[in-house]
Amino acid sequence: MSYYLGIDFGGTALKIGITDENGTIQTKQSFETVKHNEPDKIATAIGKCALKVINECGIPQDRIKGAGIGAPGLLNPETGQLKFVTNLQILNGYYLTPAIEKIIKRPTFLDNDVNAMALGEFFYGAAKGYSHVIALTLGTGIGGGLILNGKLYHGASFTAGEIGHVSIDSNGLLCKCGNYGCIEQYANREGIVSRFRAYYIHKEMKSAIDRFLEDGEITPKSIALAAEAGDHLSKLVLTEVGTCLGVALASYVNALNPEIIVIGGGIANAGELILGPARNEMMKRAYTVPARAVKVVPAKLKNDAGIIGAASIAVNKLG
Amino acid sequence: MSYYLGIDFGGTALKIGITDENGTIQTKQSFETVKHNEPDKIATAIGKCALKVINECGIPQDRIKGAGIGAPGLLNPETGQLKFVTNLQILNGYYLTPAIEKIIKRPTFLDNDVNAMALGEFFYGAAKGYSHVIALTLGTGIGGGLILNGKLYHGASFTAGEIGHVSIDSNGLLCKCGNYGCIEQYANREGIVSRFRAYYIHKEMKSAIDRFLEDGEITPKSIALAAEAGDHLSKLVLTEVGTCLGVALASYVNALNPEIIVIGGGIANAGELILGPARNEMMKRAYTVPARAVKVVPAKLKNDAGIIGAASIAVNKLG
Repeated sequence: MSYYLGIDFGGTALKIGITDENGTIQTKQSFETVKHNEPDKIATAIGKCALKVINECGIPQDRIKGAGIGAPGLLNPETGQLKFVTNLQILNGYYLTPAIEKIIKRPTFLDNDVNAMALGEFFYGAAKGYSHVIALTLGTGIGGGLILNGKLYHGASFTAGEIGHVSIDSNGLLCKCGNYGCIEQYANREGIVSRFRAYYIHKEMKSAIDRFLEDGEITPKSIALAAEAGDHLSKLVLTEVGTCLGVALASYVNALNPEIIVIGGGIANAGELILGPARNEMMKRAYTVPARAVKVVPAKLKNDAGIIGAASIAVNKLG
Repeated sequence: MSYYLGIDFGGTALKIGITDENGTIQTKQSFETVKHNEPDKIATAIGKCALKVINECGIPQDRIKGAGIGAPGLLNPETGQLKFVTNLQILNGYYLTPAIEKIIKRPTFLDNDVNAMALGEFFYGAAKGYSHVIALTLGTGIGGGLILNGKLYHGASFTAGEIGHVSIDSNGLLCKCGNYGCIEQYANREGIVSRFRAYYIHKEMKSAIDRFLEDGEITPKSIALAAEAGDHLSKLVLTEVGTCLGVALASYVNALNPEIIVIGGGIANAGELILGPARNEMMKRAYTVPARAVKVVPAKLKNDAGIIGAASIAVNKLG
């Protein structure tokens, strides 16, 4: 049995684990993301955390074939250079992979977190056995990863898959990216909550949301819980969000003719409340042949998706 | 030197030619598309036309390595079966490739006409030397072909590339495909002429279009000619059309991060009058990294694009 190290390098936490050939987590540890003024020190800290996990795992050392790092932002997976790290811009331009490789003494590979998620679902999750996969994560933003002809697709400058920034309305909501009508604005965390607030607060529509608040806040999770309990407004909002998502899915389906669209991220926990309307709208709008050829399903990997995805970057390279 | 037969199987004409390894046409002939009640008879007629071109070309017979057929509609490039032929539905379900292969006694390959155009530009035209290519044809409809990682991308059921049916406005114009806001409706022949008419006839805006009519008709070509001659309304219309196209290009660029977008078809003859505004709008809307990585250029192959594209289907398979 071969094993792979997965380094899920998030904005606030560093999660490191080891998976086996079946994508099963053997061990994992969480660390705080190190904040330093020097990139080298950050890399050394990450490397030491990784080494700790390797040394404490109890797996014969030579069985751990390599490591994958899933990181947010722009990067170059071929050179292992970080280009733009949203929450840790001190690392912009830093060659992370060679630095980590030197410490853990194993082949190390870097890719962005959404591509990692796509690979995780492709090797071990909902997209296992498929060759043409679109992976989407719904959260604070909407990210995407494309697996085409059985291979992760990076594009010309490693930014392919930004399908959260496909516009569904050229005069629609202004997106943080500068474009208008990006699907991200309609189906991300803020888009869902804003839509709910517009009905609940400004239009004074009735809702039982107060029973489901998270720390006193209206959140996608609280809306989903209220919807599951039968709250009409919450159901309406999630249906509208799913319908918007379906408009984008139809464009993806027409353009790429995928076999499966895997939807993950926190918001995907609303499940069929969003996926049902999204699928319906996609079926109405996309061409019949590709619409019938595609499945729209929730991601299968949940809690450890980040680590398994990161390890999958190594699996993808080392086989 | 190797040679390839290209069969451009259009709705109204059948054009057959032979290209050399550089994509240069050596000979070509045009035939009327045969209308028969029996698919076999149609195939036999096409095969005989192809044989005529082969026999009359003066090229040593053994140097003609294979044939490509570019056809409109849905088809299966792996089996050579036509699935849905818009203008010749008697052929739906017919295995065209084996029938032609039997007559011309050379390996024969089928693909749709837009993929053929994409391959033609990839091997011999504007996209030569690029690995990540989006090809678009603007005409009665808008078709697309994708070359990703240096390979034509077909998707799960061979319909990938229908990027004319990416919606730029979920509540926009109703498209013939049943979706709303498809870019096709804004930048195809009818979309351009309708936009012109709306300003010229309904809003009574001034234009010198009358001097440029084609057979007394307002057409994209007449609008382009008027615009080139300085007609303000014609320029406005083409700028608006280009701007709409740019919205779609931004979505393609974000999703696929191509190196080059090649735009062909009759309407692309308007050149920078459409491409300029399209490029500007794309640059404004798409992420900076992929926007800077992509060129938006007119197709290079003009009159013989259909034949060269069809021959390229064979080049793609036979190398």
